[in-house]
Amino acid sequence: MSRTLNRDDLADLARGAALLGTGGGGDPHIGRLLVDQALRESSGTITVLDPAELGDDALIIPTAQMGAPTVMVEKIPRGDEAVAALRALERHLGRRAYATMPIECGGINSMMPLLVAARTGLPVVDADGMGRAFPELQMETFSVYGVPGSPLAIGGENGETVIIDTGDDNRRMEWLARGVTIRMGGVAHIAEYSMTGADVKRTAVPNTLTLGLRIGRTLRTAREEHRDPLAALAATMADTLYDKVRVLFRGKVVDVERRTEAGFARGHATLVAFEGAGKLEITFQNEHLVARVDGEVRCVVPDLICVLDADTAEPITTEGLRYGQRAVVIGISTPALMRTPEALAVFGPRAFGLDVDFRPVEDLVPG
Amino acid sequence: MSRTLNRDDLADLARGAALLGTGGGGDPHIGRLLVDQALRESSGTITVLDPAELGDDALIIPTAQMGAPTVMVEKIPRGDEAVAALRALERHLGRRAYATMPIECGGINSMMPLLVAARTGLPVVDADGMGRAFPELQMETFSVYGVPGSPLAIGGENGETVIIDTGDDNRRMEWLARGVTIRMGGVAHIAEYSMTGADVKRTAVPNTLTLGLRIGRTLRTAREEHRDPLAALAATMADTLYDKVRVLFRGKVVDVERRTEAGFARGHATLVAFEGAGKLEITFQNEHLVARVDGEVRCVVPDLICVLDADTAEPITTEGLRYGQRAVVIGISTPALMRTPEALAVFGPRAFGLDVDFRPVEDLVPG
Repeated sequence: MSRTLNRDDLADLARGAALLGTGGGGDPHIGRLLVDQALRESSGTITVLDPAELGDDALIIPTAQMGAPTVMVEKIPRGDEAVAALRALERHLGRRAYATMPIECGGINSMMPLLVAARTGLPVVDADGMGRAFPELQMETFSVYGVPGSPLAIGGENGETVIIDTGDDNRRMEWLARGVTIRMGGVAHIAEYSMTGADVKRTAVPNTLTLGLRIGRTLRTAREEHRDPLAALAATMADTLYDKVRVLFRGKVVDVERRTEAGFARGHATLVAFEGAGKLEITFQNEHLVARVDGEVRCVVPDLICVLDADTAEPITTEGLRYGQRAVVIGISTPALMRTPEALAVFGPRAFGLDVDFRPVEDLVPG
Repeated sequence: MSRTLNRDDLADLARGAALLGTGGGGDPHIGRLLVDQALRESSGTITVLDPAELGDDALIIPTAQMGAPTVMVEKIPRGDEAVAALRALERHLGRRAYATMPIECGGINSMMPLLVAARTGLPVVDADGMGRAFPELQMETFSVYGVPGSPLAIGGENGETVIIDTGDDNRRMEWLARGVTIRMGGVAHIAEYSMTGADVKRTAVPNTLTLGLRIGRTLRTAREEHRDPLAALAATMADTLYDKVRVLFRGKVVDVERRTEAGFARGHATLVAFEGAGKLEITFQNEHLVARVDGEVRCVVPDLICVLDADTAEPITTEGLRYGQRAVVIGISTPALMRTPEALAVFGPRAFGLDVDFRPVEDLVPG
């Protein structure tokens, strides 16, 4: 059953996507402003398709922004780059897309397909390939379950396009696309993982746009109604594929070490407890990868590590981390299709070079 | 009138192309081995077309290797990468090539279109876009006189392809293609500047494959017949578009500073005179850019600066420069279409960041 999104939904979706971005994914509020403007200039609504209703042969072309979040917040898109990438890929394939879709539901990439939809009139599929945000293009459930990312099209700010075809080698596709993105100034717009409706139903994490919207709405209404936002969040998540929510730490940011290198934002953040001597360290590559409390792993990728404002529960991105911020850090379980051995081989901790085995957050922090 | 090339021609062509490479362009002897092998496995001949005989509407797709010469000598091609690039560009354009052509006649790129020709049966046009070798893709007479380099196709060693389209911005095409080449390990194979026969006749430097062959043959036969190779070279060049040959310096290599950075081989070489206290310094970016004797400019890009073995007149590439080598350094005038204000804006000394105005070698070193 399709539904529609309009301008009134965007603030909630951006808030939920910031949480699902686990610190990275680019600030969705920038994407929100672009979508808001495009909706004011167009029909005002976006059609959202449930993946279950897709025809098996429908051509779906996901669209996204790629780059370091630290650059994304400084280099605002013109707004039509992702449409140019989509059109370039359609020309290359010799077919038109039936719909677009997010590749990740966290961060700015929850918004970029909506921007494409608002500008083209295409519907958006309510699903994605990361179920959160990840820093690299091969880190997709699409990739895990056999959909090639190639051919990938890149659109740049001067109207230039690049098409990369690495066959079924999605790591090599990421490597070459990252090189082009760096040369384009650290941010580019892409269309990739073109697939059929049947592929979407088999490989995508379903209903994650709706999930982002629900999370954002939950946090806002809890705040408006003076209820505990974390309790409200846990209640909302309980009937989703992300049903375990754990508080990992409450404390104050005392150190952030962040650098933009090789096209990524990498670094560490350290928090000390409001009470007692406890210390939390988070390691990130665009997104939060591992959270350790006093040296013990409490949550690790692909489970979600989210830093929220201690008072408002507003999600804080890694580029927004500042000395002195008061935060609560939570862990959220990811869906079962993101925790299989095949999935962990692509986006588990060792895929990021961490010498840590994956353990579910609900085992690391019993409820 | 077409002619044919066969295996017996390759050694002379490689020697001539090494001279026209002005120190860079990649070592043509590696390309020669690849062409020799391909000819042994095929018909054994390559058809060479005079540009004057091309139909105005014939589709010509030049092919080449790109990268740092310092890497090219270590990373030997498999041999079908440039064919893959040509085929990818043909698919993108929806048309088949009538012939291929060099983009530069100096260095290994004199050979790469012959490799494509030997493997595909396509003829090769006897012309190029540099009239020598240059380090960057926008540095083409094609570009100077209005032919866009885009779309450009890149073929990598794993069968991957990349298509770059920057419209008529050939500098941006170079920038993005260089980024991809670096990510491919420092060397890649390309097809670009697809153009009509009419474009070739209007913008290419004509008959430069034949020129390379004549230069190589001249140096070899002079050596075999114990004649002065420099006098023989000057006599050969006298009836070509490159009709001024000047000896700039004779001396011994005492210093070479060479680094591979940003995808290029950059550095300086210093020679001291066999007699007296004179000193020659050459600055290079893949190719020799400027030669100064005791601080005075004696020859500057786009005129050719060639380092030859003092005894045999064999050309020496920058990556072959060694302490103690005994060399003669010569300057050669480039064709008039490479010395126009439009041409100098693209590949004159200031296009390389040198604070030097172009002056013809025949003015700097009167004959």
